[in-house]
Amino acid sequence: MGRQVCDAVEAADGMEVVARIDVGDDPKAAVEAGAQVAVDFTTPDSALGNIEFCVGNGIHAVVGTSGFGPDKIARVERALAASAGVGVLIAPNFSLGAVLMMKFAAQASAYFESVEIIELHHPNKLDAPSGTALRTAQLIAESRAAAGVGPSPDATAEDGDHHRGGKVEDVTIHSVRLRGLIAHQEVLLGGVGETLTIRHDSLDRASFMPGVVLGVREVAGHPGLTVGLEHFLSL
Amino acid sequence: MGRQVCDAVEAADGMEVVARIDVGDDPKAAVEAGAQVAVDFTTPDSALGNIEFCVGNGIHAVVGTSGFGPDKIARVERALAASAGVGVLIAPNFSLGAVLMMKFAAQASAYFESVEIIELHHPNKLDAPSGTALRTAQLIAESRAAAGVGPSPDATAEDGDHHRGGKVEDVTIHSVRLRGLIAHQEVLLGGVGETLTIRHDSLDRASFMPGVVLGVREVAGHPGLTVGLEHFLSL
Amino acid sequence: MGRQVCDAVEAADGMEVVARIDVGDDPKAAVEAGAQVAVDFTTPDSALGNIEFCVGNGIHAVVGTSGFGPDKIARVERALAASAGVGVLIAPNFSLGAVLMMKFAAQASAYFESVEIIELHHPNKLDAPSGTALRTAQLIAESRAAAGVGPSPDATAEDGDHHRGGKVEDVTIHSVRLRGLIAHQEVLLGGVGETLTIRHDSLDRASFMPGVVLGVREVAGHPGLTVGLEHFLSL
Amino acid sequence: MGRQVCDAVEAADGMEVVARIDVGDDPKAAVEAGAQVAVDFTTPDSALGNIEFCVGNGIHAVVGTSGFGPDKIARVERALAASAGVGVLIAPNFSLGAVLMMKFAAQASAYFESVEIIELHHPNKLDAPSGTALRTAQLIAESRAAAGVGPSPDATAEDGDHHRGGKVEDVTIHSVRLRGLIAHQEVLLGGVGETLTIRHDSLDRASFMPGVVLGVREVAGHPGLTVGLEHFLSL
Repeated sequence: MGRQVCDAVEAADGMEVVARIDVGDDPKAAVEAGAQVAVDFTTPDSALGNIEFCVGNGIHAVVGTSGFGPDKIARVERALAASAGVGVLIAPNFSLGAVLMMKFAAQASAYFESVEIIELHHPNKLDAPSGTALRTAQLIAESRAAAGVGPSPDATAEDGDHHRGGKVEDVTIHSVRLRGLIAHQEVLLGGVGETLTIRHDSLDRASFMPGVVLGVREVAGHPGLTVGLEHFLSL
Repeated sequence: MGRQVCDAVEAADGMEVVARIDVGDDPKAAVEAGAQVAVDFTTPDSALGNIEFCVGNGIHAVVGTSGFGPDKIARVERALAASAGVGVLIAPNFSLGAVLMMKFAAQASAYFESVEIIELHHPNKLDAPSGTALRTAQLIAESRAAAGVGPSPDATAEDGDHHRGGKVEDVTIHSVRLRGLIAHQEVLLGGVGETLTIRHDSLDRASFMPGVVLGVREVAGHPGLTVGLEHFLSL
Repeated sequence: MGRQVCDAVEAADGMEVVARIDVGDDPKAAVEAGAQVAVDFTTPDSALGNIEFCVGNGIHAVVGTSGFGPDKIARVERALAASAGVGVLIAPNFSLGAVLMMKFAAQASAYFESVEIIELHHPNKLDAPSGTALRTAQLIAESRAAAGVGPSPDATAEDGDHHRGGKVEDVTIHSVRLRGLIAHQEVLLGGVGETLTIRHDSLDRASFMPGVVLGVREVAGHPGLTVGLEHFLSL
Repeated sequence: MGRQVCDAVEAADGMEVVARIDVGDDPKAAVEAGAQVAVDFTTPDSALGNIEFCVGNGIHAVVGTSGFGPDKIARVERALAASAGVGVLIAPNFSLGAVLMMKFAAQASAYFESVEIIELHHPNKLDAPSGTALRTAQLIAESRAAAGVGPSPDATAEDGDHHRGGKVEDVTIHSVRLRGLIAHQEVLLGGVGETLTIRHDSLDRASFMPGVVLGVREVAGHPGLTVGLEHFLSL
């Protein structure tokens, strides 16, 4: 992942990689090299220290993690409070397609009577529903609650056995596991006489790179903490 | 339904409606009118008597019902044994799209490691999974058993709550209920590096008419009992 | 259409139909009945006079037409300038699904290297590409131009014959015509390693009603002229 | 490709790789190693000589090529005439998904009023439509001609500019080129009130391996020449 990020940044207009820091390396190398933005794709544990170090040295940070709870977020905000003008982006997902799918699905779900999610993955995946599906369902549930939309209608009286999938609030998720698939998700929205379907197909981690480059480009212009790449998009 | 069938038969090349018999009418009208083929879309209960009457009078019959168990089938066969050359078609589904989807899915499932079904209907439907999905899954399970194909791979270790859907043998069915939908089904088949998807969208009962007309055209050429429209197709 | 609109408004919370005015009827009936909002689904020609009459009498107007050129728009604005606080919504499309598809597609297209449109309709349609597809492509082209995104990559060196479809700026549209379809559109967006697909299926004009009701509910809160239902959505 | 084939054969039940012959190697190594079946994924030019050598030595052959014209086919048949009991399979496509898609599409197209093809590929592809789409359209055109089905209905009177795609007989092909895609095809079939869609997604050449293994397993049981993997499937 680190190598892909470096290649993507090198290839982007107006950017240059000035330091490559592996786990165990001294992060001071970033300061000495004059880095303006740091990209961190390590682990939730080491990321926090890295962010505090960067912010303390006036380096903006782009961090890929979904594992930051309220405590870690509070520590990042404390560090930022002491360093005016520094920006930190923490994003659980750098795929522009996934981020837009979630954003659009949540927005649209306020205007449709029904919504369900189908997520489809390779059969070696251990968890169902997928993290992305759970997050999408959560965002949809919040959007519908805010708009005062009730649960999707469902007259089912006779139902079959348990199978793969789940529910977040009133949002049903179906989990397909099929050899030949990689990572895919469809959000189906329906009203009288029409349906709207938003589908994301992810075939390769290379799909994260445009999002990382966008984060690097925008983070200096967004001082303070931003959680979620969608806030850097002009939507 | 009766009216739509009469219109479709009238509109078909080389066919003519000679009698229209409602529930309670005397079926002798068909004999008197010189009918060669009778179409019956009544109920499982009245259909049996109608078939026996038609077969006894040398009239071929095309019957739309999914409610004939072994006893009724045996009585139809007994009637046919006494009337050489007469043909009876009993079909649970006259939609060519649905019949082909089921046939193709069963055939293909012998050649793929994974298979799952997604059926999608309007939210007023009472039962889940749909009858068509259960029948498709049954046909797939039989095809895979005959070919010695094991269950679809599935590493799921952590799964969510119960939600709509079911299983037939090892075949998972997901049941989507969404305002704006009518009746739809997708069969997903997957092997290493590829997937094959067979989808049927049914928007209108008018879709049954080409199948009924095909049944009327072919039944005289298939003496004895045929169960399932797929046997009249050149596949 | 008029009848469907009246039924939808009657069924909506907090709304009441106070007058039904057919072509040729005197629009003064609306004033006498104390109408607060008028809904006009007539023709581009009669709509203009109706709007001017309503605005002059302090009645907000919701108008369904795609046929208003700059001259008619200017006349509506002149009428509104003389009636402070009155709102007029002119929308070419009241389907929330279609409006959201176009909005989302235009927004997302600024972030993806490639975009193409597939529109699919019944085979009795006279024009290709559809008006919705042309409008979508126009919005996408504007969004990409504003974001500085170049044309979708395309190495095609050897191509087949002409067939149904078209192009708006650099945006390719494929037009499928197929018995059994009604009105459908897919916008495909692609970047390295991922695709995002936004699909709208329209099965029934009843799908316009939630959009009309939304327009009626919101128009008084948006004084002046609004073109396009998307401006009344919280996106 | 050669390495992938060897790995797949080694991994298959009851099969063993006894010789690996590269371009320029002496094919006698196959005879000496006691090979029962040879797999050839070379070029149309060298494949012919390899087949003649194998057949002459009583070795069955599985050949992956789409480049054999009538002359080469005739030479293969001449070689086989002199070696009773030897089987040769020549297949342009070893993807079971692609083979089944083409077969099912051709069969189904005899029963639907309308048919169109959408093929979707990465934007570096030079030719449009794809070879698979042209072959599918040809098979559909033949199936419809044999069944006496006329051209798909199309009322288009006003059409846009030329864009990517083509036509085979009356079968329209739309060619989508989009970053993020690999190789995909959808065949859409439609009748009154229903549509049937058959879609193949190919993500990896590894998808050819089950078809190659099937060919190796079945070729000895099919003496003489077989063109097309579909003839080894139980459909």
